[in-house]
Amino acid sequence: MTELLKSVLIANRGEIALRVIRACKELGIKSILAYSEGDRDSLPVKLADQAVCIGPANAAKSYNSPELLVSAAMAFKADAVHPGYGFLSEKANFVKMLEEENIGFVGPTSEHIAQMGDKIQAKRIARAAGVPTVPGSDGVVSEPDEAFQIAKETGFPLLIKAAAGGGGRGMRVVESEDTLERDLTEIMSEAKTAFNDPSVYIERYLTDIRHIEVQVIADGMNAIALGERDCTSQRRNQKLIEEAPSPVIDDELRSGLQEAAINLCKEVKYRNAGTIEFVFDNVENKYYFIEMNTRIQVEHPVTEMVTGVDLIKEQLRIASGIPLSFSQDEISIRGHAIECRINAEDPNEDFAPRPGKIEKYRAPGGFGVRMDTHIETGYTIPPFYDSMVGKLICWAETRDEAIARTLRALDELTVDGVITTGPFQAMLLDSEEFRSGHFNTGYVAKLLESKSELPTDQ
Amino acid sequence: MTELLKSVLIANRGEIALRVIRACKELGIKSILAYSEGDRDSLPVKLADQAVCIGPANAAKSYNSPELLVSAAMAFKADAVHPGYGFLSEKANFVKMLEEENIGFVGPTSEHIAQMGDKIQAKRIARAAGVPTVPGSDGVVSEPDEAFQIAKETGFPLLIKAAAGGGGRGMRVVESEDTLERDLTEIMSEAKTAFNDPSVYIERYLTDIRHIEVQVIADGMNAIALGERDCTSQRRNQKLIEEAPSPVIDDELRSGLQEAAINLCKEVKYRNAGTIEFVFDNVENKYYFIEMNTRIQVEHPVTEMVTGVDLIKEQLRIASGIPLSFSQDEISIRGHAIECRINAEDPNEDFAPRPGKIEKYRAPGGFGVRMDTHIETGYTIPPFYDSMVGKLICWAETRDEAIARTLRALDELTVDGVITTGPFQAMLLDSEEFRSGHFNTGYVAKLLESKSELPTDQ
Repeated sequence: MTELLKSVLIANRGEIALRVIRACKELGIKSILAYSEGDRDSLPVKLADQAVCIGPANAAKSYNSPELLVSAAMAFKADAVHPGYGFLSEKANFVKMLEEENIGFVGPTSEHIAQMGDKIQAKRIARAAGVPTVPGSDGVVSEPDEAFQIAKETGFPLLIKAAAGGGGRGMRVVESEDTLERDLTEIMSEAKTAFNDPSVYIERYLTDIRHIEVQVIADGMNAIALGERDCTSQRRNQKLIEEAPSPVIDDELRSGLQEAAINLCKEVKYRNAGTIEFVFDNVENKYYFIEMNTRIQVEHPVTEMVTGVDLIKEQLRIASGIPLSFSQDEISIRGHAIECRINAEDPNEDFAPRPGKIEKYRAPGGFGVRMDTHIETGYTIPPFYDSMVGKLICWAETRDEAIARTLRALDELTVDGVITTGPFQAMLLDSEEFRSGHFNTGYVAKLLESKSELPTDQ
Repeated sequence: MTELLKSVLIANRGEIALRVIRACKELGIKSILAYSEGDRDSLPVKLADQAVCIGPANAAKSYNSPELLVSAAMAFKADAVHPGYGFLSEKANFVKMLEEENIGFVGPTSEHIAQMGDKIQAKRIARAAGVPTVPGSDGVVSEPDEAFQIAKETGFPLLIKAAAGGGGRGMRVVESEDTLERDLTEIMSEAKTAFNDPSVYIERYLTDIRHIEVQVIADGMNAIALGERDCTSQRRNQKLIEEAPSPVIDDELRSGLQEAAINLCKEVKYRNAGTIEFVFDNVENKYYFIEMNTRIQVEHPVTEMVTGVDLIKEQLRIASGIPLSFSQDEISIRGHAIECRINAEDPNEDFAPRPGKIEKYRAPGGFGVRMDTHIETGYTIPPFYDSMVGKLICWAETRDEAIARTLRALDELTVDGVITTGPFQAMLLDSEEFRSGHFNTGYVAKLLESKSELPTDQ
């Protein structure tokens, strides 16, 4: 029988570092936290089995330095590295360095990361696996003639996207034929500057869409889908609220989505937790692959709450070389879960970060309430990283009850000393659009436009 | 459609008061907390929609006074009263007073309480419903001749129990025929003194037993069973650790237990959440009814965690006159849940209460971890009531994982300033007996005997 890893170096901070520490403890794996000087007083440092300072607060010289993290893993004889999300979690060169030093990675191979990190290659793999993709170019477009040809198929408006972009960066909507040539030239030049890669591709521009993603867990041989998450509640491409299951995905659509996700994983013999992101066209009731994330995601807990599967423990088992111990038939969805990403930001100042000292923290509690956070009373949110205070995840038997529970928990949550997005998220949850389940990625912007002042906790 | 209650007066304190407040908030019911001066600074007072001081810290003049609570319910125009557990939750006279004033009770009728509060009558009802009971007398035994006759059926040792006793009070083990007459006379006299009722009955004394109980929810017409809880981990009849499902109950036994529980409820047209308690004979693999609790129990969360059913919300719906909205077929058990009742007690001083000020409280967190508590940093546990700090409930996919998670969470839990039973419970969970699942109600006492010193957090 394959044994579990004995020790894991955690190359991250904040709530996800704590999440990984907890999973390691439950499995009897020694957790070694690599932290920056900016995080010296944080809860993960206190709770890890071992904590090692790897550099200054500046992430470029700590969390984002592959060399430092590989050295730390070697120095502390870690069997593997867990990257969390963000930072080095999807850097193929970092994983390549670990592979060369024969250190494990709680994630996929460097090749998987490289394949999926290139949006054009990822789209090609999806097509090869029979996964629907947004109509558009087959690959890189660099000539205006080619663009005009593709526009006939996609229609206007269309979208030009940088191959190296993602998360809303490096894309432009083209309204008509008149500007197509100019737009193509400009976005290629921008992509060159921003990503050091001028490659762009063209897609149909879908306007009334939702963001739907499928969670997978795969061991290189088998891949299992754990239902979808709906991340349509966004502001400027930043997710604010995520839920599982999606209020618009019925059993038939879910089967299709899951099959597509599994086929994609099998096409590349994927290993690790992963997320296959789709756009869902509200008008046509169709979904199209957009990209695959090869790491654990911020919003993974909603899937855990409805499936019962502990995704971080599964990641650690897979990285230990243990095959998946359950089958697709054993996965079922129970109830409904909603996550709010609560940030220390001022909604009335265009969501500007407001890091600072937390004078008093009181966690919400009770049945179905989970607060994944690294904050405590007296903790100072450092200004160097994201401004996340924590993730509030609430489960209940139905979507309506999950909304009621989340509102109750948000009301209980106390984070004195900083301004948070909690009351703003309560407003979203309580909106007619959210409650109805019928909305698209534009509803938050519309709601923001209609309000002269937003609720805050200060 | 029947509407929900508009307001509920909560006649309790501590974690269960907070539990009821949360359920009320989620249902949009106004929560009115009746509190004593001893609880003025407690979290439930801060979180209730309205809080009213009903008397001094002395429970006889506050939480245990039916008159005060009925007056408060009338003065604040509460539609109903939620009694929590303990205090007046199983006092038929209190419920009778509410019935006379036409105030609702989130519980059964006063008649149900009276029937089940009388152990002999309860046993008769169980027999009438075809529920197995421990071999012994049919009813009250007062004559030695009768006792000798029954002893032929039960054998020795046998048990003499006061009809008005319960929870380990008012019972005596009789080892042989030699002392039977004397023991009978003495326990009758003790019962007269303690409970103002000399009625006693006789039962076979089972030595290698577990405590198994079935959670039911009933609306007067239908009754649904929500699986069993195993509460075998006890010290002097006080529950320390509860779990669901039981490691010794297989599907066939569970069906039998559930059917028995449902038949008992239907026999009396029971309404409310309720618990049917059984002893389970490890030797014969048989279960026998012992008593029914007609209130919510301390350990209800383990059932919530494995079934997904919110028992307090169901209680409130039923008290509103809304019929059960689900059927027995829709109930399934997912995973395993363990609860530790964490008390401020010193295990090395015979578990003497150690109330006091909590200098620092840090709740454990993460997937599957629920801490039902009313404490916070700076809160002083008053000396007037029980010494419960909170209930730690952990859920995981398997029993082994639930044990690992509970141990991890106990390790994270920080309650500086008072001594708690947390480390002692960790020792129990980590024992060979508990891990194996094979133990009886005597294992804790044996383990205590074998240790010269117990672990504490001070």
